[in-house]
Amino acid sequence: MTTPPASASPDTRPGTPRDTPGDTPGENRLLEHIEQRTRALFATRPDVPVGPGDDCAVIRTPAGDDLLITVDQLVAGVHFDPATTSPDQIARKAVARSVSDIAAMGGSCWLATATALLPQGYADAQELFDRVHAHAEAFGCPVVGGDIASGPSSPLTLTVTVLGRPHPARGVVRRSGAKPGDRVYVTGRLGGSLASGRHLRFEPRLHEARWLCDTLGDRLHAMIDLSDGLGLDADRLARASGADLELDAAVIPQHADCPGWRAAMSDGEDYELLFTCDPDATLPDRCPGPDADTPGPSLRWIGRVLEPRDTRAPHARVVDEKGEQRPVRHMGFEHA
Amino acid sequence: MTTPPASASPDTRPGTPRDTPGDTPGENRLLEHIEQRTRALFATRPDVPVGPGDDCAVIRTPAGDDLLITVDQLVAGVHFDPATTSPDQIARKAVARSVSDIAAMGGSCWLATATALLPQGYADAQELFDRVHAHAEAFGCPVVGGDIASGPSSPLTLTVTVLGRPHPARGVVRRSGAKPGDRVYVTGRLGGSLASGRHLRFEPRLHEARWLCDTLGDRLHAMIDLSDGLGLDADRLARASGADLELDAAVIPQHADCPGWRAAMSDGEDYELLFTCDPDATLPDRCPGPDADTPGPSLRWIGRVLEPRDTRAPHARVVDEKGEQRPVRHMGFEHA
Repeated sequence: MTTPPASASPDTRPGTPRDTPGDTPGENRLLEHIEQRTRALFATRPDVPVGPGDDCAVIRTPAGDDLLITVDQLVAGVHFDPATTSPDQIARKAVARSVSDIAAMGGSCWLATATALLPQGYADAQELFDRVHAHAEAFGCPVVGGDIASGPSSPLTLTVTVLGRPHPARGVVRRSGAKPGDRVYVTGRLGGSLASGRHLRFEPRLHEARWLCDTLGDRLHAMIDLSDGLGLDADRLARASGADLELDAAVIPQHADCPGWRAAMSDGEDYELLFTCDPDATLPDRCPGPDADTPGPSLRWIGRVLEPRDTRAPHARVVDEKGEQRPVRHMGFEHA
Repeated sequence: MTTPPASASPDTRPGTPRDTPGDTPGENRLLEHIEQRTRALFATRPDVPVGPGDDCAVIRTPAGDDLLITVDQLVAGVHFDPATTSPDQIARKAVARSVSDIAAMGGSCWLATATALLPQGYADAQELFDRVHAHAEAFGCPVVGGDIASGPSSPLTLTVTVLGRPHPARGVVRRSGAKPGDRVYVTGRLGGSLASGRHLRFEPRLHEARWLCDTLGDRLHAMIDLSDGLGLDADRLARASGADLELDAAVIPQHADCPGWRAAMSDGEDYELLFTCDPDATLPDRCPGPDADTPGPSLRWIGRVLEPRDTRAPHARVVDEKGEQRPVRHMGFEHA
């Protein structure tokens, strides 16, 4: 879609925090409630090394295999414009969103399940399913099961669960591992994903995540994918790690059509990787591409990890053009 | 709900086959299309012993653990009446439907993911999530991950994926294992689930499935859970097994409020187990209950497995009061 559909509710529009004071509990508050509720439960379960609260959960089978699992929904009128988005584009985005969560943990894809909630009389169901299967296979996670339902007023909704495997040497990369002193990097360029249509054709950074794990090993400390905007997602990484992140507005990499660093931090749906690593690690300006002739995305050093100013409220902030420090958690919201 | 909501489309109403000639491809036809599409793919993948087409897929981890995986959606206006169903009932049914698929393969529950698509401004989100988590935990598959979205006209939809483990001795019980000569059994009583509200409080037959695996071992040949009606589900088992099923209308176990065997075969949403076993196996009239004072559901011998009359079209049929044989695949539809 070129702009978020007018009918999308403010608390679900991509790229903005989901909660304002006085709202019905929205996504963020509910997710925090769920994390708190389940923390004690999974703390005592060795078969769930990582419960709710990261890009994927990590589950351990009886024989000791660790698996990544993630699920995401793609909803017409919220995540795409049903009037202008093809079944192929819908299918691809639905799969790619979950695949991006696997990349965020440094993993590779294994298998998927997919369900569809269809508007009554939806004419392209078979094409949609063929494209879901084709894209899932292309990303390395063919669909092993699913379900189809339709309802009288249902917005077309695809729900894709992806199972993945951690990097064999580095293991699971969590968002909670950032350490004071780390450098903060981001892959690719940010901003304008919805306006430009890039949200329908982004490349989940599976290849780059694997290369980072290969290259940095244990010096790769924390990683997250940028689904809701650099501001909000950097803050999530900071809070999960119990550290502050300080980003430099002047070096945030932007797409040519992005009007400035504020938009780059708050537009969302970039699906680039934000990661922190040991300051001694040296990285090139660009990730290697799939072959010698195809360049990979840029790698930009955009900030650093610091001891939290307030240990009860670790956060991410940006230093703007005037040298002023601004918290970024609600940045998307400020600029909506 | 006491009756299927008037707004539910005929091809999604529980308990009826989803396709009529000339329809947009509905669930059944789409699922068959998907099965065909993926059969070749998974035939060459030892990590997917069972692909799409059974109650669960079976996936094998690198170290050799087999896992069951299933996903189901629960949609307001289709699977429950949003005006009369509490968050607790909605949550329970959403989890129990997927759990029933684990039971159908003879498995036990391990972990779950859950997503919610909420109508805008839905006030009970936190209660709904708490109840989803509580019921999933009670069924043995606590929720490790999820997603929340809302849309302007979205019907409340819960999508629950459950991972399970096969029975440690019997292994995975498929719907495709019925052999000519087998006896056909069903647990519990059938019919009137929607009208009575039983569809909101059914007990997935995890305990009974485990007991059948324990008791029958390899003499338990095929199993399926009755979600869409005995007629349609018996036919699915017959087709998957390449054999005919012949059921005796006179002995179909019915709830007291069920008006007759036709309704018992076509109403759907019973979530009882239909299974076939070696004719030499002897079974009691009732499954053991959870303790000495609590009886389990009845066990009724309702038919037999035969060589297919037409190997290109194996099917299930019922012998009615007049001794006439009638195919049952479309029975739910005939009596809609």
